[in-house]
Amino acid sequence: MAKSPIILNGFTMNAVSHVAYGLWRHPDDQAYRHAELDYWIELARALEDGGFDCLFIADALGLLDVHGGGYAASLAKGVQSPVNDPLLLVGALAGATSRLGFGVTVSTTYEKPYLLARKFTTLDHLTKGRIAWNVVTSQLDSAARNLGLDKQVAHDERYEIADEFLEVAYKLWQGSWEDGALVRDRGSAANPDGLYTDPSKVHPIGHSGRYFKVPGPHLSEPSPQRVPVLFQAGGSPRGQRFAARHAEVVFIAGADVDGIRRNVAEVKRLARDEGRAPGSIKFISAVSVITDETDAAAAAKLADYRSHYDVEGALVHYSATTGIDFSKHDLDQPIRYTETDSNRSLLRMFDDPSSGRQWTLRQAFSPEGGFGRGKSFVGGPKTVADELEQWLEVTDTDGINLTHVVSPGSFIDFSAHVVPELRRRGRIREIEAPSLRSRLFGRDSRLPADHPGARHDFSQARPPEALAS
Amino acid sequence: MAKSPIILNGFTMNAVSHVAYGLWRHPDDQAYRHAELDYWIELARALEDGGFDCLFIADALGLLDVHGGGYAASLAKGVQSPVNDPLLLVGALAGATSRLGFGVTVSTTYEKPYLLARKFTTLDHLTKGRIAWNVVTSQLDSAARNLGLDKQVAHDERYEIADEFLEVAYKLWQGSWEDGALVRDRGSAANPDGLYTDPSKVHPIGHSGRYFKVPGPHLSEPSPQRVPVLFQAGGSPRGQRFAARHAEVVFIAGADVDGIRRNVAEVKRLARDEGRAPGSIKFISAVSVITDETDAAAAAKLADYRSHYDVEGALVHYSATTGIDFSKHDLDQPIRYTETDSNRSLLRMFDDPSSGRQWTLRQAFSPEGGFGRGKSFVGGPKTVADELEQWLEVTDTDGINLTHVVSPGSFIDFSAHVVPELRRRGRIREIEAPSLRSRLFGRDSRLPADHPGARHDFSQARPPEALAS
Repeated sequence: MAKSPIILNGFTMNAVSHVAYGLWRHPDDQAYRHAELDYWIELARALEDGGFDCLFIADALGLLDVHGGGYAASLAKGVQSPVNDPLLLVGALAGATSRLGFGVTVSTTYEKPYLLARKFTTLDHLTKGRIAWNVVTSQLDSAARNLGLDKQVAHDERYEIADEFLEVAYKLWQGSWEDGALVRDRGSAANPDGLYTDPSKVHPIGHSGRYFKVPGPHLSEPSPQRVPVLFQAGGSPRGQRFAARHAEVVFIAGADVDGIRRNVAEVKRLARDEGRAPGSIKFISAVSVITDETDAAAAAKLADYRSHYDVEGALVHYSATTGIDFSKHDLDQPIRYTETDSNRSLLRMFDDPSSGRQWTLRQAFSPEGGFGRGKSFVGGPKTVADELEQWLEVTDTDGINLTHVVSPGSFIDFSAHVVPELRRRGRIREIEAPSLRSRLFGRDSRLPADHPGARHDFSQARPPEALAS
Repeated sequence: MAKSPIILNGFTMNAVSHVAYGLWRHPDDQAYRHAELDYWIELARALEDGGFDCLFIADALGLLDVHGGGYAASLAKGVQSPVNDPLLLVGALAGATSRLGFGVTVSTTYEKPYLLARKFTTLDHLTKGRIAWNVVTSQLDSAARNLGLDKQVAHDERYEIADEFLEVAYKLWQGSWEDGALVRDRGSAANPDGLYTDPSKVHPIGHSGRYFKVPGPHLSEPSPQRVPVLFQAGGSPRGQRFAARHAEVVFIAGADVDGIRRNVAEVKRLARDEGRAPGSIKFISAVSVITDETDAAAAAKLADYRSHYDVEGALVHYSATTGIDFSKHDLDQPIRYTETDSNRSLLRMFDDPSSGRQWTLRQAFSPEGGFGRGKSFVGGPKTVADELEQWLEVTDTDGINLTHVVSPGSFIDFSAHVVPELRRRGRIREIEAPSLRSRLFGRDSRLPADHPGARHDFSQARPPEALAS
């Protein structure tokens, strides 16, 4: 059976450093220019010309402030700080590219569905159908405190809110403006008024739920995809249920084959329960690649990069993710958890009797083979392509979010060395598609019929409503 | 005394029609392409090449639904509907231009200051100091209903919220990151860690007020202007107080010389009370210009445009602005208000015994001399330049928001015919300035010392705070 093209995303953040801690100190890293438009245009063009499908931009709405009990280390080490808005980049990059997709992280916890739906419709228009939304619910307490909440909304309730948020958004995107509502008839002698939009084809959504009340119609005319391609990354049981219902592309972090396989299988099982067709969800994992013309040259590059790596920067990030202040642990002492540790499932990644694993922080967070919080491959074109194909096979995934060690250098290296090899193997998408959804799934630009958002589609006729709102 | 250059803004909306009702039916109007990036890039380049200072984009967060008791007419006539997000355009236009400023309308009623401050900082970076914020508080009930409020927040309280919103934003923009906080020291043998941001120069703002609680520091590094140039358009007594405190450019609607003069004088008086220096606020009014090589050619153009004008479209807009459903009035009967009319001050524009005015709706909303909701000038280069200079003189204003009849045609016409004449008279800005604020005010890119936002500036030293948030 012919292998299908892999999903190839470039993964970054509107910040000086994303997950390659300390690498901003490397002379090749350009991410310190992240506030400049030119940096992003160069990056987006490098990805598009290099064969990537999508630029995936992470975000955080707060500083990382668990390590050391404050945010001093995150600032000093440039760990995801300063961090600028990712959504505002898309307009500029839309004009500088013609095929690349844009997957942007936006939280459902701090936005209003009526306005966020308009933002994504606007961007889907401006990009001509190339926008994707990485739906997150925001985990940082430091964000919640500055955004009007005394403390974070409880984890599972954040997903309840997100479920209703998406229901509202589907109604606005799919169930408000019928195809053909926008008539744009300039009029004639017989009909001098003309008709811009046919009001009988624009429907108020009448949503009244537990968290949101949105009676009116969508403000914007339908865009090419109507609904942005939906990315999601939740790994918790509740997050997996959310992904199984809504996601079209699920992003799984980590480098543990069995963990990823279990996650993929579980989301697929839950998706079946939601009535979604097999293959309706694609899975990607975080991967870093250090490559060059030969294995030896790649190994030399790795050694150079390693000398700029900052293990404490990794701890700043991991402390914020887990809520455990790792500044209190000695870098070179094995971690031991006790039965009283509230986060012992997290600490088990270091100290796991069942696997015999007992690591120090330096061991756990040193770039053994590579960088970032996912799988790493180091080598020349054939080595990386072999290992990457093997990785997709054993993890049962469809593609990668390629993290950068240096930016845009890591993406350019991958394009120069690995993409030609993958192209020979038929693993790079060569098609011209009318939209990102069409590109990734080889079908229509709209949501497929088995997706819950499609329930609100006007292809399933509804009775006309009163127009007065 | 030499006359200073006028402020020349192009005024529009991310919608098919802004204030030239019905003109979307004219074959020259391109605004139906407002969802396309190319339309905006053409428009922005036409403005920049044509000598304009700034593109000013209005917004509305709801459909206009007072006329006829619903939004059917606003859709059918394309009156400010559909309407897409304006802020997301700026990134694209930043890359397509190098001098043009961007004044974007965003409401303080539905945004969170912690995130909106980051958005404007991001855009100020991407535009290299060319962003302005038109601060509004949103008047449409149709927006409130879809954004989580059962009804609109009361008018004056919206301004109380806006006052505190700006205070929070000033603290984030001006009082959080000191100049020099971003060190970007890649390290050395003596200091292998390096230092990206100096945490001792990043301060939590510790804001706890009536409407907002924002303890932490700003997420983004300071941008060229730090604070976007602040535009404001409130004409009510409370709105004028707000403008006098915060605005750098005040936008006054209407075509009534005495009304504009009174408004200008009152805001200047209130600004003195706020301790702001004379000349610290510039005033602009809405103007439409129909021009060509000669007066006769301009008059012919006016006749052509008039034949596409839709007086009922004007009523759709005016009904939403005033809350009066004008669909109930006969277009050709004089309007009479009675003492029981709750909106009689509004109706007095039609029926004013003291001025002897007694108009029908058709008379009041027909494009007597031009279009839009401001002053109109029709003629060749010299005629328009003379009348425009006279207008600025008698209204005591510093510039204009030029509305379009057709877009981008009206802007291109103005640039082709009127700008060269104004340039000969020394009224067009020829300078290269490091930022929009610097361009408009001929001084530093930062807020001046007499502005209330400057109180939070780090040039006035503050004691260091604890870093743990």
